[in-house]
This record gives sequence, structure tokens and C-alpha cells, in this order.
Amino acid sequence: MVTFERLLGRMHELADLAGVIGLATWDQETFLPAKATAARASQLATLQKLYHQRLVDPALGDWLLEHARAPGDRGAMVRVLNLERERALKVPERLVTELATATAHAIDAWKQARADDVFEPYRPHLTRVVALKREQADAIGHGGERYDALLDGYEPGMTVARLQPVLSALREQLVPMVRALEAVRRERVDPFAGQHFEVAAQERLTLELLTTMGFDLEAGRQDRSVHPFSGGTHPRDVRLTNRFDPSDPLVAVFIALHEGGHGLYCQGLDPALFRTPLARVPSMGLDESQSRLWENLVGRSQAFGGYLFARLQAAFPSQLGGVAPEAFAARVNRVERTALRGQADELTYNLHIVLRYELELGLLRGELEVADLPAAWAERSGALLGLTPPSPRLGVLQDIHWAEGALGYFPTYSLGNLYGASLFAAARRALPDLDAQLREGQLLPLRDWLRERVCAHGHRRDAEALVQAVTGRGLTDEDFIAYLRAKYSALYGSPL
Amino acid sequence: MVTFERLLGRMHELADLAGVIGLATWDQETFLPAKATAARASQLATLQKLYHQRLVDPALGDWLLEHARAPGDRGAMVRVLNLERERALKVPERLVTELATATAHAIDAWKQARADDVFEPYRPHLTRVVALKREQADAIGHGGERYDALLDGYEPGMTVARLQPVLSALREQLVPMVRALEAVRRERVDPFAGQHFEVAAQERLTLELLTTMGFDLEAGRQDRSVHPFSGGTHPRDVRLTNRFDPSDPLVAVFIALHEGGHGLYCQGLDPALFRTPLARVPSMGLDESQSRLWENLVGRSQAFGGYLFARLQAAFPSQLGGVAPEAFAARVNRVERTALRGQADELTYNLHIVLRYELELGLLRGELEVADLPAAWAERSGALLGLTPPSPRLGVLQDIHWAEGALGYFPTYSLGNLYGASLFAAARRALPDLDAQLREGQLLPLRDWLRERVCAHGHRRDAEALVQAVTGRGLTDEDFIAYLRAKYSALYGSPL
Repeated sequence: MVTFERLLGRMHELADLAGVIGLATWDQETFLPAKATAARASQLATLQKLYHQRLVDPALGDWLLEHARAPGDRGAMVRVLNLERERALKVPERLVTELATATAHAIDAWKQARADDVFEPYRPHLTRVVALKREQADAIGHGGERYDALLDGYEPGMTVARLQPVLSALREQLVPMVRALEAVRRERVDPFAGQHFEVAAQERLTLELLTTMGFDLEAGRQDRSVHPFSGGTHPRDVRLTNRFDPSDPLVAVFIALHEGGHGLYCQGLDPALFRTPLARVPSMGLDESQSRLWENLVGRSQAFGGYLFARLQAAFPSQLGGVAPEAFAARVNRVERTALRGQADELTYNLHIVLRYELELGLLRGELEVADLPAAWAERSGALLGLTPPSPRLGVLQDIHWAEGALGYFPTYSLGNLYGASLFAAARRALPDLDAQLREGQLLPLRDWLRERVCAHGHRRDAEALVQAVTGRGLTDEDFIAYLRAKYSALYGSPL
Repeated sequence: MVTFERLLGRMHELADLAGVIGLATWDQETFLPAKATAARASQLATLQKLYHQRLVDPALGDWLLEHARAPGDRGAMVRVLNLERERALKVPERLVTELATATAHAIDAWKQARADDVFEPYRPHLTRVVALKREQADAIGHGGERYDALLDGYEPGMTVARLQPVLSALREQLVPMVRALEAVRRERVDPFAGQHFEVAAQERLTLELLTTMGFDLEAGRQDRSVHPFSGGTHPRDVRLTNRFDPSDPLVAVFIALHEGGHGLYCQGLDPALFRTPLARVPSMGLDESQSRLWENLVGRSQAFGGYLFARLQAAFPSQLGGVAPEAFAARVNRVERTALRGQADELTYNLHIVLRYELELGLLRGELEVADLPAAWAERSGALLGLTPPSPRLGVLQDIHWAEGALGYFPTYSLGNLYGASLFAAARRALPDLDAQLREGQLLPLRDWLRERVCAHGHRRDAEALVQAVTGRGLTDEDFIAYLRAKYSALYGSPL
């Protein structure tokens, strides 16, 4: 029998390789010279191949089996790594290669089709990706619902049977709420419009806000990229990126709060779990719960909003000195049906998710074909959002996810909203002074509460079990809907 | 028999891993958060271990044997990779680990000893490193001269028997030249002293100079680090760093020319050699020949100096508008005996190298022990430079190299000076308009000449054979001494 230390050595090796893949990916989006994209693609492919080889190594399988009954964290490490290994073993190398090639071509075709605002040239590429994803789901295995196999890759343990009623209920409650809010006539003057906000000052402000959140800038950084993300190589090396729009500082401010939420999750890990299979989030949904919590439940709240706006005014006194806090609150909480998910507010965002979930479920079941996707998109968009996208760019071509092969990913955004609201409600119960603290910009008590209960534990448990342990309830929309009702009734002066 | 394509696949894998090690190292010196140093050390150790495992893999040995008689570039690839593999195989893993640990401790001890300006606490650490380096040299194997085994790691094919007469002759010629120049009384007013040079303007100027040299900023970058270096992941991803001193723009200007020289070597590689064992310099000496050529033979020349100073004046008109070009030429070509190698001029620099070479040769032969090093340093320093270092920090503690275990490295700096002068003399013969071009700041003809003859070829041949093919002569000090005599006789108005 091999010692656990030997197994731990392999775990460290895999974690280090994953960290270096994180570095090469971060660098690709931030500092890589233009002519080095092909070289970087090769380097990443080599790292991923080595990671895969070390993961599927039969010796590792034996070691995991020998330690299957290890107690405590060690047992959880074995369980999590074994699941990852089993998944990797089930998908034949040929399919992995075909998926990598097909998605690379599909991403290129998607970019071009989006630029030209036409779906047709992209259609055959997406058709190929969907066919391969069906094949991949069957290879991984499922109990009759292909979607489950893919969903499990992003949200371990989640199934359509569990998810479907949650999203349906969400849909049924949100559609009338959005309609009711849109019926309220509101002042539409944007107090930020038509002004210039120096980028260097925006950058300073976002770094200040990250520090206020308790993000440790000696164990992480914020750089710039076209599409902001959070990544890095280790919980002591967390890399956030941001994007600065000289005409609107709120873009960067809310990106900082969002990515900072992801960053706090990573930095909060118990050091005992560093370089192990538990040193990661248990699910994409729970990861998103932290970013959405900090961006929306804190960042767009009445309590913290006053502090946040004061900091914005201090950074841009001449541009914002005369703006009333109420105008700011209205600006960052405007409910409006838009064609683009990326511009959606807290309520309609989830309707965009339901739209995509229903369509990709149909694609995987074989009830919907890619050729019929634009028409299906228009029909569902009408039912959910009350609008038909005026062109493919504002409809079926707006997201990169399907081109990347990330079918089954979208629901994790809504799960993040639900988990985030439940965790925030629990924090509110546990921290009686929370509102007062938020008003003062004192975010560390909330950070510490979340760190101790959620972030520290990495993947010790699956997401829903962790949320259940913290909040006393599993996946539910009750906290989220209650939060929305209370907040938007007050903001719009109209009971929901 | 395995196909060459299969072997090439392994070569690509090794090159990609080396590239990623380059990225992780670059990042460590530029952007890594302070608290991530331990994490990065683990990541680098894992990458190096994987590289080593893939290199010493017995299957690779078989494949190399099968293709030992491959023609042309393929044959050279097999030869170079085989030599690297043989070297790696000869050093037992235990010794590799012991060296890594001992040098890590020695570097820490060196930093502290240097800060405290005392040799004694560092002595046992350096003693341990020297003992392990003797052991490593014996493991690699040699014909009675341990130094040869280490030298070969930096300068393949070079031996003490070949090097010793060259360095001795250099010493004999330079010592009286330095004495003669120091006897000439000169104006010592520094036209740059006491002024402020904005760092952003310095940075713009260095990027402009890199572009003027023909360094492609779409296939490379310049960032900042405490100790400037050139690195990167691929010939299309070359990372230079610089250091900006607000009181003296010449620091950054000459670093840019120096690192830019290394960068041009890397960017100039024939794309047919990308991701192969030939995609690297044949020796550290030849690598240094390019940086020293651009920094000194171009950068400090009478011809390019006028152009360079005009660009400096354009960047800093109020600070430098009234300075005469002759004062600039005198400032950048001041010959002066200093205790520190890092501050040495073109002439005395080589005496610093001879000093270190003689001492490390004694250490490896066992004729000198570490405990006697400070006294030996003082004695040689008196003979070579006519000065005794006032304290260890300005003497035996000034370089990091020995703490890092890089015994045998120093001579490559002087080899670089000699090769650089010979290559520049050949360029001058081949490009009759070179001086006129340098005066106009037209550096591309020289870059292209060097690229075609030197940079493009990577490690197709060993350094001396390549220089022999380009200049018609092997390693010699004649071109270097002739260059120094002509230049400094004119500058000092005193025949040498």
C-alpha cells in the first residue's frame, strides 16, 4: 500500500499544473504579445495533455482505491479527485481532441458571424459541437437525461429533475414581477451620462473597493482585460481583471465587486487544503453565489450604496458632486427588459438563463436542432422577456458559451443568485449589525462570516450540502424572491 | 523504429514546458504577489521535475539513438537534445535535490550577509555549495579538470585549456591600458547629475529605442523588475525587463540596449526551429555577445552616440538641452577602477571576470577553500584592479552567482565581449555604410546582418564554430583589443 503522502505528492503535482495553466491563461488575456497566440495555444495544449496523463495514470487509480476509506479531509480529497479522474477516463481521447478542434473552429466562426450579424455561417459549426456534446454526455453516462452528465461537470450532484422545478418556479414568479415594475413610469435621466471619468482614478477606486471588501492585494492583483474574469495560480496568487470605460465608472466598479467576490472565495481557503483536490469551489453555482452576493446584494443595496456612492463622489467630485444618492440607487437598480443578457438587471437576468436552459435542454434531448434555434430563441424570448431580438447579434449569437461547448453551464448563474440570496439572508440573521456595517463601508465582518462558513471549505462538500449546513435549507428561491420583493417594492414605491 | 515526427512531438513538449517555466519565472520577477513566493517555488519545482522526467525517459533515449544519423537540422536537434539528456542522466536525483536546497539556503544567507556586510555567516552555506558543485562536476565527468564539466554547461565545447590563455592574454593587455587611461586627468563633471527624469518619459524612450533596434513589440514586451533580464516563452513572446532610475535615464537606456540585444537574438530565430532543441542560443557567451554588442559597440559608439543623445535630448529637453554631445560621449565611456563589477566599464569589466574565474577555478580544483576566499579576493583585486574592496559587500559578497551554484558562468561574460567585438568587426567589413547608418539611427541593416548570420541559427552549431564561420576566425581577443585601443585612444586623446 502506498502512503497517503505519496498520493498527496501527486495531488500537489496536479494542483501545481492547474495553477500554471491558470497563469498561462491569465497571461493570454492580459499581457501576451499579439504574435504569440499560436505559441501560447501550443503551450496550453501541452500542459493540459500532461495534466490529463498524470490524472488518468493507472497508478493513481490504485492509490485512490487504497485510500478510499481515509477519514476526514483526506477522504474528501480522494472522493473529489476520483470523480474528476472517472469523468476524464470515460471520455475517449479521440472525442477530447475532436471537441477541442470543433470548439476552436466554432469560436472563430461565432466571432465572424457575430461581427456580420448572420447566423447561417455559424450553424454547421454549432451543429458539430452539439453532436459532439451529445456524444460526450453519453460517454460520461446518465440515467436517460444527457443534460445531467454535462450539468454535473459544472454543478456536481445537480440534475434536471432537481433543477427544472426550481427554474420553472423562478420563471413563474419573475415574469409578472418584471411586468409590474415596467408598468411603473420612472424618471430615466442618467446622472452619469455625457461626462468623462479618468481611467487612472477609476483604477484607484476599484483597488480601494477591493481592499474595503477584504481582498488581499498582497495575495492577488487586478489587471486589465477585454473580458474581465478572475483566475490565478493559487489562493495566495489570485488574479482579477477589470475593464475601464471612460464614460461610465460603474462598469468597473461593479466588475470589481463581482470579480472581487470570486477572489475572496479563492483567498478564503483553509491553508490546510492548499495544493489538494479540495482547493477549489464545489460548483460554478456556488462560485457565482459569491460574486453575485458582493456585486448585487452588497453592491446594489440601499445600505452599502450610500457608502459606495460617497466613494465615487470623492473620486469624481466635479462629475458627481451634484448628484443625489437616490438618483444613484435608481441608476444601479433599473429594471428593464433588454435583448442582451450582459446588460440585464437582477430580475430579468434569470429569465435570460431560463431561455438558454430550455433551449440547450432541447438540443441535448434531440427535440430541437441547431437549424431551428433562431426561431426557437425568438419564440421563447417573446414568452419570457416580451421582446424579439431585432437581429442574431442581439439574440442567438450574443453568448460565446455554446461555441466553447459549455452547454449546461448557464443554469449555474441562476443557482448562484439563489444560493447567494440564501447565504446573505443567513448572514443577516447571524450579523444583527450588518446593515449598519454596510452603511459604514465595514465589509470585513461579512467577509469573515462567509469565509468561515463557505470559502474556507473549498470542495469539502458539494454545493447544496454546504448551503444546507450554513442556511438550514437547500436550493430554494424563497430567499431570492423575498429579497427582490422587498427591495424593488421600496425602490419603485409599488408593492410586488 | 519510431518516426521522426513522434520524436519531434516530444521535442515540442519539452520546448513548451521550458516556455512555461520561462513564463512562471518572468512572472515571479514582475507581477507575482508578495505572499505567493512559496506557491510559485512549488509550481516551478513541479514543472522542472516534469521536464526532467520527460527528458530522461528511456523511450526518448531509444528514439534519439534511432535518429542519430538524421541529416541536416534534424541531426543537429538529435545531437543537442542528446547532450542535454546525457548531462541530466549523469547527475543523480539526490544531488539535484541537495543542490536545489543548498543553493536556496545559500541565496537567503547571501542576501542577509550582504545586507549586514559580513562574510562569516555566509561561509558555511557557500562551502556546502562548492562541495556539491565539485561532486556534480565529477558526476558529469571530465578529463582531470572539474571546471570543464561546469563550463560546458554554459559554453558547450569550451575548456580551461582553451580559455586560460585567452583570459591571461586579456589580463596582460588590459591592466596596462587601464593604468594608462587612469593617468590621463579628465573633467569629471556629470552633466546628468542633480536632475529629475520622469519615469514615464524614460519608459517611452526605451520602447522607442527597442523599436529602432528592430525589436518587435508585437512579439515581445518590456516590463519592470528589480534585476533586469530577458526571458519569455517563445521567439514570438520575448519578455524584457528594465529598471528606471528617476535621477539617471542612462541606466534604463543602456539596459534597454543590452536586454534588447538578447531579445533580438531570440526573435531572430528561423521559424523552422521553433519548439525544437535548436530554438536556443548555442552558449551563454554567444548570447552575451549580442547584448554587449548592442549595448557597447553600438550604444556607446561615437557614431550611434550622437543619434542616441539627440533622442535623449528630445525626451528631456529642459534637463539636457544645454549639454554638449562630447560631454555625453565622455560620460558613457568613462574608464575607472571600481570595486563593483556591475559599475565597471568596457575595459575593467573583464578584469573583474578574470578575478572571479581564477578564484572559482581554485575552489573547484581544491587549491582554495571558501574560508580563504575573502583574503584571496583582496589579493587578486589588488593585482588586477589596483584596489582592495573596503568591505565584503563591495568585494566577495557582490555577486549572487556562486550562491546560485553558477560556478563556471563568469567567463561567458568575457567570451561575449570577445565574440561581440569579432562579430561587429565582421559586420563593419560587410556593411561599408555601417557608420553612416548608425549616425542616422538606422539599425535595421546591422540587425538583419546579425540575424541572418547568427540569430537565425539557434544551436545549429556550437558558438565558436558559428563565430568562425561568420568572421573567419575563432575565439580571439584581437578584434576586442583593437576596438578598445582605437576608441579610447581617440576619446582620451592619448595613444594606447
